[in-house]
Amino acid sequence: MQLLQALCQIPAPSGNESALTEYLLRYIQHNQAAWHTQPTVLAGAEFQDCIILVFGRPRTAVFAHLDSIGFTVRYGRQLVRIGGPVVENGYRLVGEDSLGKIDCTLVVHEETGALSYDYHREIERGTELTFYCDFRETDTTVQSCYLDNRLGVWNALRLCETLKDGIVAFSCWEEHGGGSVAYLAKYIYETYGVRQALISDITWVTEGVQPGQGVAISLRDSLIPRRSYVDRIRRIAEASGVPFQLEVEGSGGSDAKELQHGAQPWDWCFIGAPEDNVHTPHEIVDKRDIDSMLALYQVLMREL
Amino acid sequence: MQLLQALCQIPAPSGNESALTEYLLRYIQHNQAAWHTQPTVLAGAEFQDCIILVFGRPRTAVFAHLDSIGFTVRYGRQLVRIGGPVVENGYRLVGEDSLGKIDCTLVVHEETGALSYDYHREIERGTELTFYCDFRETDTTVQSCYLDNRLGVWNALRLCETLKDGIVAFSCWEEHGGGSVAYLAKYIYETYGVRQALISDITWVTEGVQPGQGVAISLRDSLIPRRSYVDRIRRIAEASGVPFQLEVEGSGGSDAKELQHGAQPWDWCFIGAPEDNVHTPHEIVDKRDIDSMLALYQVLMREL
Amino acid sequence: MQLLQALCQIPAPSGNESALTEYLLRYIQHNQAAWHTQPTVLAGAEFQDCIILVFGRPRTAVFAHLDSIGFTVRYGRQLVRIGGPVVENGYRLVGEDSLGKIDCTLVVHEETGALSYDYHREIERGTELTFYCDFRETDTTVQSCYLDNRLGVWNALRLCETLKDGIVAFSCWEEHGGGSVAYLAKYIYETYGVRQALISDITWVTEGVQPGQGVAISLRDSLIPRRSYVDRIRRIAEASGVPFQLEVEGSGGSDAKELQHGAQPWDWCFIGAPEDNVHTPHEIVDKRDIDSMLALYQVLMREL
Repeated sequence: MQLLQALCQIPAPSGNESALTEYLLRYIQHNQAAWHTQPTVLAGAEFQDCIILVFGRPRTAVFAHLDSIGFTVRYGRQLVRIGGPVVENGYRLVGEDSLGKIDCTLVVHEETGALSYDYHREIERGTELTFYCDFRETDTTVQSCYLDNRLGVWNALRLCETLKDGIVAFSCWEEHGGGSVAYLAKYIYETYGVRQALISDITWVTEGVQPGQGVAISLRDSLIPRRSYVDRIRRIAEASGVPFQLEVEGSGGSDAKELQHGAQPWDWCFIGAPEDNVHTPHEIVDKRDIDSMLALYQVLMREL
Repeated sequence: MQLLQALCQIPAPSGNESALTEYLLRYIQHNQAAWHTQPTVLAGAEFQDCIILVFGRPRTAVFAHLDSIGFTVRYGRQLVRIGGPVVENGYRLVGEDSLGKIDCTLVVHEETGALSYDYHREIERGTELTFYCDFRETDTTVQSCYLDNRLGVWNALRLCETLKDGIVAFSCWEEHGGGSVAYLAKYIYETYGVRQALISDITWVTEGVQPGQGVAISLRDSLIPRRSYVDRIRRIAEASGVPFQLEVEGSGGSDAKELQHGAQPWDWCFIGAPEDNVHTPHEIVDKRDIDSMLALYQVLMREL
Repeated sequence: MQLLQALCQIPAPSGNESALTEYLLRYIQHNQAAWHTQPTVLAGAEFQDCIILVFGRPRTAVFAHLDSIGFTVRYGRQLVRIGGPVVENGYRLVGEDSLGKIDCTLVVHEETGALSYDYHREIERGTELTFYCDFRETDTTVQSCYLDNRLGVWNALRLCETLKDGIVAFSCWEEHGGGSVAYLAKYIYETYGVRQALISDITWVTEGVQPGQGVAISLRDSLIPRRSYVDRIRRIAEASGVPFQLEVEGSGGSDAKELQHGAQPWDWCFIGAPEDNVHTPHEIVDKRDIDSMLALYQVLMREL
């Protein structure tokens, strides 16, 4: 879990993912020699801070978003949200402006809910703050801020080790309205003819999806994927023996929103481990669900 | 109205339109020999569950959505909405899971509004339920669930009988956020240079749009079409002698949303018969408005 | 400011921008001979009511929206909004229907907030009404309806006088959900390889952005631009000596929404003078902020 811990500690709020992008490019460069198949690495200005890895003759693409929720410093000591963080008095926030490193605490106004920070000086306008990373591991769990979606990124990187044919795409802005999957999807479809997607992201523990019961295959969230594609995935999952759970939600979204609404006929399915304490500094995931997530991705990328 | 009745009885909730798609492909195959012009039929994996029919040298495309509203079974006996169905205790819902056919009733919790079903057994997670179809016809009206949009589909199919030049596109997911018109619109524009659209869909009876007064030409809903295109349509309609009404709404949407927001310069106009009891099992339309809808489409596809 | 006054007086509610488009095309034809560089003018059916001007070898595109907020006449004397106008009893509204010119007043129902008009006759269904233009100029300010965004259009036209390399695009529908920037952005990116954008639009006076303190560079609104691009712009602005302010908002949007969500990797930044009395007939802007807006665009189009 050292890789996961490293990923969780790199700040990458939506719109400013470049530090994590650079980390991943170095990681890929240092590790790909040990992978079963050498991928083509697509990155650079035409892809903003995204990365596409192309293995062999791809039929399916995995999307994992790099970015996280956070806060932007507004005027005075006001904060505005990046994405949808849970807010609680005293959460530790970190960042950096031209005056140096910042380590402050979140203040939630009791009556208005207005957000501000407590710190010995004013922070520069437009500075991004993210949760301080307190990475905790037990025999059965990992806990940290930003498991959503560093665990999805971790899953995609581990998948690369054995992947023969397929695409792994690392996207940006997912937590704050999207903005990169539209062009990634267009590029992938037009260049490789691929229109099957798996969304490597983290979902919620609910009354129907429990920790330790296996990775969740989402039958729907706020959007509804094409039934025939999801049914194929269920059949492969059932035959595989990998533990999994079926999720049905009426809300929530993912990188799939841009696939659904883009101008290519993508089929997509969200498949991810469930976490508790969503969008707090204390996101927690059961290690068995991490194992089954990776195992199911390995099977699906072979058989879809 | 046998064709309309058959269309209303086929379940096709957003995301699972394939049964209706297959019905239409068979209908087209069996009937096209009697049509004035033989269309090119575009369907298959690259179009998911959509169908495009291309007649002659097209200048205008008609879009009719196949899908309907409904419900997805969540956990326990909970239901979540597909699109925006009206909910009322006792509505009869039908579906199928691996244990067999289902015929149950909708339960709306009195205080919370939470949705569930009453049935002798639990229904499998992720199963879709749709309104039971009780098709009722009088001398002056038709009444059924899903006239929105099986009547728009019916109108498009009847239009095919006499169409010389034009495109008829059957789309998916309209009731639940869209997701197919973006790629249909791109394909049609790039392949045929067509960027004029008519939306063959059903609208609402209101204080300004009354049953029996003719098909409604919508001047706007939540979106505003380009004035110069709608003005051309109004002039053709006025010259035609076909009865019509002008609609002006501040809310509501259609497949036109994807045309408006897509990366091609589509002009569009929503033209459809008004119905009462919208999104209930008892949608009702005046037959005169059905007649004027088809008549106006025939004129417009010739003259636009 | 005669040009600005002329622009403010031409009605161009979202969806019916053609009168302003025609004015601009004539203006460009009459004035371009005096410009430093002769642009290629792209307009016509394939661009609906938009215009693209291409100067030299472009690296950056400026987007300025032509359309304004307003009202559509519904049934009886009801009005529905075009975009988000502020409404107050007695605002003077103008328009035209087949019976002639209209000059009426806005009525806001005290309890329901329902909108209607006071006039000696009924106005035809679907007629658009806009604020009456009372253009007021002092030594230090300009005041009128529709400075948002006629001032952004003015800025773009003045920029054309000295522009060597760059694109200026005039868009439609910005105030009402968008609908043209998607295809403009696709065309520009695919034809010229340009993916850097500046949004020439007007923002709000707030506690953090004051009149007379310089043009506002927005670090974010409801969307978050890519940090690395905005940082480049800040560095150029700082080196230029042009007065500017940094804006940070959690809400609001612009043509940038379509760039962010489109299928090309656009970098974008909103840069515009702040105004008070936003979306009323009394929008007011400090002339110093207009000066710094134009000056900063001139610098950025050279150096980006």
